[in-house]
Amino acid sequence: MIPEKLTQILKHEGVAAIVTQGANEPHVVNTWHSYIKVTGDGRMLFPVGGMNTTESNINKNNNVLLTVGSREVEGTHGMGAGFLVDGSMSILSQGTDFDDIKQRFPWARAAGEVRVNKSTQTL
Amino acid sequence: MIPEKLTQILKHEGVAAIVTQGANEPHVVNTWHSYIKVTGDGRMLFPVGGMNTTESNINKNNNVLLTVGSREVEGTHGMGAGFLVDGSMSILSQGTDFDDIKQRFPWARAAGEVRVNKSTQTL
Repeated sequence: MIPEKLTQILKHEGVAAIVTQGANEPHVVNTWHSYIKVTGDGRMLFPVGGMNTTESNINKNNNVLLTVGSREVEGTHGMGAGFLVDGSMSILSQGTDFDDIKQRFPWARAAGEVRVNKSTQTL
Repeated sequence: MIPEKLTQILKHEGVAAIVTQGANEPHVVNTWHSYIKVTGDGRMLFPVGGMNTTESNINKNNNVLLTVGSREVEGTHGMGAGFLVDGSMSILSQGTDFDDIKQRFPWARAAGEVRVNKSTQTL
């Protein structure tokens, strides 16, 4: 469900952007590729430190856009590959996924979960 | 107007995200750090290939959010720095800035210009 190429991109450090819809304007937060864990059932998990506006936005509309990319992975036009993910985001503050994040990132107040509905290779 | 730290981040390759407001949902496109040129008067210039939805969105509302980051630049919590830029975007299809972009990126149909209104170091 999550393409191998996307997983490959996450193995190279970089910035992921997570975009939500606010009342009148979009909102964006970032996390590092290396913080994101891809699960076998099509989810991306990462630590949540702040992300308070993101949380407030997804409580009303949990659709998110997430982008990742790396110049070190071969893309559709030579070196440089990127993905746009269309997903549904949740904030997990209990359960095994939360425990796993908390163990790796003690500063995390929660685990962010993006369920990948669609992923498009943009480059 | 554009912080030195942000310019430093752009010297390391990575993915910039440019977020616009669509009719009912946000939209995001990416470009490479190395494609972005910072001007002395607080603007960021980059080649525009597709970005058709972005162009259509900014015709209605030219506010954009732009994020950049690099793990190789010292941030507020050790290595890893990032910025969130609040700006106004234009698509330039003539003029010296366009000519400059066109020379560096012959495939570009236009130059993207983000005038930085506010920049916040997020990490």
